[in-house]
Amino acid sequence: MSGTARAGRTGAPGLPDPAALFARRAEGFRPSPVRAVFEIAMRPGMISLAGGNPDTGALPHAVLAGTAARLLAERGSEVLQYGSGAGIERLPELVCRLMDLEGAATDPGRIQITAGSQAGIDLVVKLFCDPGDVVVAEGPTYVGALGVFGSYEVAVSHVDVDDDGLDPEAVAERIDALRATGRTVKLVYTVPTFHNPTGVTLGEERRRRLVAVCAERGVVVLEDDPYGLLGFDREHRLPSLYSLDPETVVHLGSFSKIFSPGLRVGWIAASPAVRARLQIAAEAVTIHPSVLGQELAAEYVGGEHWRPALDRAVARYRSRCAAMMAALEEHMPEGVRWTRPAGGFFTWLDLDPARAHGDLLHRAIDHGVVVVPGGACYADGRPSTSLRLAFSAAAEEDIAEGVRRLGRMLRA
Amino acid sequence: MSGTARAGRTGAPGLPDPAALFARRAEGFRPSPVRAVFEIAMRPGMISLAGGNPDTGALPHAVLAGTAARLLAERGSEVLQYGSGAGIERLPELVCRLMDLEGAATDPGRIQITAGSQAGIDLVVKLFCDPGDVVVAEGPTYVGALGVFGSYEVAVSHVDVDDDGLDPEAVAERIDALRATGRTVKLVYTVPTFHNPTGVTLGEERRRRLVAVCAERGVVVLEDDPYGLLGFDREHRLPSLYSLDPETVVHLGSFSKIFSPGLRVGWIAASPAVRARLQIAAEAVTIHPSVLGQELAAEYVGGEHWRPALDRAVARYRSRCAAMMAALEEHMPEGVRWTRPAGGFFTWLDLDPARAHGDLLHRAIDHGVVVVPGGACYADGRPSTSLRLAFSAAAEEDIAEGVRRLGRMLRA
Repeated sequence: MSGTARAGRTGAPGLPDPAALFARRAEGFRPSPVRAVFEIAMRPGMISLAGGNPDTGALPHAVLAGTAARLLAERGSEVLQYGSGAGIERLPELVCRLMDLEGAATDPGRIQITAGSQAGIDLVVKLFCDPGDVVVAEGPTYVGALGVFGSYEVAVSHVDVDDDGLDPEAVAERIDALRATGRTVKLVYTVPTFHNPTGVTLGEERRRRLVAVCAERGVVVLEDDPYGLLGFDREHRLPSLYSLDPETVVHLGSFSKIFSPGLRVGWIAASPAVRARLQIAAEAVTIHPSVLGQELAAEYVGGEHWRPALDRAVARYRSRCAAMMAALEEHMPEGVRWTRPAGGFFTWLDLDPARAHGDLLHRAIDHGVVVVPGGACYADGRPSTSLRLAFSAAAEEDIAEGVRRLGRMLRA
Repeated sequence: MSGTARAGRTGAPGLPDPAALFARRAEGFRPSPVRAVFEIAMRPGMISLAGGNPDTGALPHAVLAGTAARLLAERGSEVLQYGSGAGIERLPELVCRLMDLEGAATDPGRIQITAGSQAGIDLVVKLFCDPGDVVVAEGPTYVGALGVFGSYEVAVSHVDVDDDGLDPEAVAERIDALRATGRTVKLVYTVPTFHNPTGVTLGEERRRRLVAVCAERGVVVLEDDPYGLLGFDREHRLPSLYSLDPETVVHLGSFSKIFSPGLRVGWIAASPAVRARLQIAAEAVTIHPSVLGQELAAEYVGGEHWRPALDRAVARYRSRCAAMMAALEEHMPEGVRWTRPAGGFFTWLDLDPARAHGDLLHRAIDHGVVVVPGGACYADGRPSTSLRLAFSAAAEEDIAEGVRRLGRMLRA
């Protein structure tokens, strides 16, 4: 480095305590418990069942290398330049084809490309929710969504899930009860298919009813659907909430689980008026998603390699899920219960409260396995009596060994 | 498309008016006037002097194609996977080398990688500003920053710039006056070097004084510095505000103008406590910036092609700026004044008020040239009596012809 004194070591007085200047919302910024143990999860010998990572090893790397090289060599000036805030022109039509596969046919004019699905949650909450508003969400729910709610000073009211997801009548009652106490409820946030973190799927009749009770009450349903194409049984697919009522439902889709999370490209499907406002909000945050990332996603899902690679990845997830189920049967002590997912990345363990003492994350790490403690998936910071296990990114023998270690921990 | 009815045409009742559910902050969402004319600017025959685009044609496309291909072929599983919320590991050290070139030596531990510099503005305003707070900023200021302020219900108090940028005494008086009326001021937002939109540069003594008056008042200075390495005279460089007081100043850097805006990668330099909170906020918005984009940026600025390509681009900007100055001399009517930038992308025209009537943007488009009307660079929606012209992305003959058309418009 140069001879200049490095800033930060100069002893310049500056502001004594910048934290004293933070906005009120900064109190709601919550670090992700998964990200917090990212470094630990990488240690040699540690088995991670924590992160919801897709198997990027199943992707055709050489094909993608060729595509990226061609894009940069032939259209470098364009893909390296600023792009449109709505997304690159041909991507919305390709997104519609993907949504078609899920029986959620829609128009390209209703598609807003985002810098990933997390950005989609951020934009929708930013557009709809004032501080103090309450979002109704599954209990437990996606930890990343809790990060968004916290950052906008939005409260969360959890409705318990069972093996068929949310009970729509319980959601209706909750909305009414919250409103009766003067709270504002505009949004129900849900991951209806292969739920993060529990792995359960909302039943078909419940889907219709959930959308209906929300429409009746003037509440937007935010359907977060990154896993919809990851069903172990390709023939059996339930209608997306968006397909049931595209005015009440705002739909979030993502390339992260069916292609690559590293590129940060996703989408929102919404009514044209909502989509237009989301674009303005999105431009103020990132101008537009990575053009190169969008171009790669478009080339990939528009090409011939995508579907076989996805089938290959889903076959792995199915085998790994089966391996996890078998290991749980073998190693879990009496009184522990778990979900049996039909797709996606996760299973959820309800622990015998007697075994759920202490800091589950660090107890597990002491036993050589990283998991997401269930309490992290609730807004209220309750102690963990449950765990999320991901089977998506670990080899079958690691899954078996990781679950064995967990069993030992729970018996200790 | 499939035979399924497309959502949005089904006549399902759904929510009658989602706009009635929008958050209060949605009133502050303002579409960028530059992006709004993006389509028009692309029409054949139209000359655009609007967008602040770097010359991505000056980049070594074949080299970048090879780099991207190698990254995907050799490390595909990693660069397509989720990454760290702080950024890829080696990028902060490379960012420090770039900042060193500007005389702003700093530590990698103070660098937060962002999904572009716009995302940096968003995160800093989100961290520091509550609704109703006032940000002091140049008048005029960067339109994209106004989009952020509006989206957080933050008011803007403009302090006029002259040929040496902001007057620090005027900033101090403004902060004091705002506070005397009970307003909260935590942030001064400034683009001190080759200012967007005026092209002026804050003088050295003013730099020291600006940081001092803000530090005395407990106000954070947000230094937005995308153009710092784009000086026409490489020898003559002023100290960055951050180098003068790295506790009071939060610094925004970007790869957009020295490499590629399409990849959306930038950074924030800040005290460790602030950086840590910004990371949590950033993870809630986009999890992390594109890994492939970060890897490409790291390979590029860590390699041998970067500096010559930047020199090539800056030489073009210098020639184009000279072409614009000559054309302005030739074609502008009496009473029009403009700035003489020493770097960056822009010059600013103060029009004779008698000639600034009507909708300047559409008058210019009628004459075959696209510009940014000055009013767009103020928060208060004042009528435009000024224009921003970008010389960065147009060929010299188009600059000459574009300015000739503007001259005709102003005489009409």
